[in-house]
Amino acid sequence: MFQRVNLIGRGRVGSAVADRLRERGVPVTEHGGDLVLLCVPDRAIREVAAGIRPGPWVAHVSGATALAALAPHVRRFSLHPLQTFAREGGAAQFDGAWAALSGETADAMACGRRLADVLGLRAFELRDDARVLYHAGASVASNFLVTLYRAAARLLDQAGAPPEALIPLMRRTIDNGFDLTGPIARGDWDVVEAHLHAIRTHAPDLEAMYRALAEATRR
Amino acid sequence: MFQRVNLIGRGRVGSAVADRLRERGVPVTEHGGDLVLLCVPDRAIREVAAGIRPGPWVAHVSGATALAALAPHVRRFSLHPLQTFAREGGAAQFDGAWAALSGETADAMACGRRLADVLGLRAFELRDDARVLYHAGASVASNFLVTLYRAAARLLDQAGAPPEALIPLMRRTIDNGFDLTGPIARGDWDVVEAHLHAIRTHAPDLEAMYRALAEATRR
Repeated sequence: MFQRVNLIGRGRVGSAVADRLRERGVPVTEHGGDLVLLCVPDRAIREVAAGIRPGPWVAHVSGATALAALAPHVRRFSLHPLQTFAREGGAAQFDGAWAALSGETADAMACGRRLADVLGLRAFELRDDARVLYHAGASVASNFLVTLYRAAARLLDQAGAPPEALIPLMRRTIDNGFDLTGPIARGDWDVVEAHLHAIRTHAPDLEAMYRALAEATRR
Repeated sequence: MFQRVNLIGRGRVGSAVADRLRERGVPVTEHGGDLVLLCVPDRAIREVAAGIRPGPWVAHVSGATALAALAPHVRRFSLHPLQTFAREGGAAQFDGAWAALSGETADAMACGRRLADVLGLRAFELRDDARVLYHAGASVASNFLVTLYRAAARLLDQAGAPPEALIPLMRRTIDNGFDLTGPIARGDWDVVEAHLHAIRTHAPDLEAMYRALAEATRR
């Protein structure tokens, strides 16, 4: 377990972690913590970990990075908050979110679960070798949701309609359990063809994306 | 204007319209209404409209269908609720949603605005010849959001992670104004390549969709 956290990195995630630890009264220290928590970019994890004197727990918060990146440490785990963070969003950003926990020993899992509890995250166990596949799914759900909105907003804007009108629609799509409605659900291929024609005319760079998504939806 | 509505069709949208009209005390009649509102499938609009004796206002609620489908009627408009409807969702489904209104005269627009008010929709004007482009945007935002979730859920499931963990992430992505985070935002192409490799191995049919979305996101 841990009592004091040496928190390295104050980016979007690191800042929110710092706020939550302060809120919960867990001391954050620059030296001598019994958990060193790396909130640094993925590509920096290996180097930063290698520079830490062995002894404390060492953990990272990256979704796609394997535990091996924390070598030479063996008391290690990874806890990835399945959430998108705003720079000034603070500790509340953890509330309601899940987190992927990977560890190689019962002690590591217990330490990771304690960190999840302190942060207010619902942890699930994730095999270390499944992290990349899991993270691909997280990216599809969040990053490509941004892409989808931006593409749809462009089409509405070009049609002279207010893009923000899409937001209640998208929220309800989630609220309704991702129930598929619309032309593809109805098998209305004439409408799909008409969409493609309009996209080809007004936003031709979106045609490949529309086609790939329509094909995936049809299946 | 209208006082009594002849409502044709009781699918997802028609049922919600019926509930809202009842709630607001607007009589729904089978004969002699001064507004005939077609809540029928897109492909049936033309035939049903052609069978209505001219006189009352005639309107449809389709997103992609042009006003010409309402011929021979000239007192006509279209009001498309920009929302996804559940079968038993009732009148509350209109609350907070926008709607695209097309009409060819000031009277038609006024009649459409009155219907939007009665239903509780925020109407915006949409040119009749921009309806298909607008509807393509609506489909991208809602239908492809379903596809995105199902694809992401499959990846999480294959990774042994609970798919429902994606939901708070997706909601927050909307709450944060579709701010792009994650590997593409960070220019972390190694992670994107790792995702592609994992998808190719575990869900090869999703590779084309991932590539098209990653390319659109990069731009």
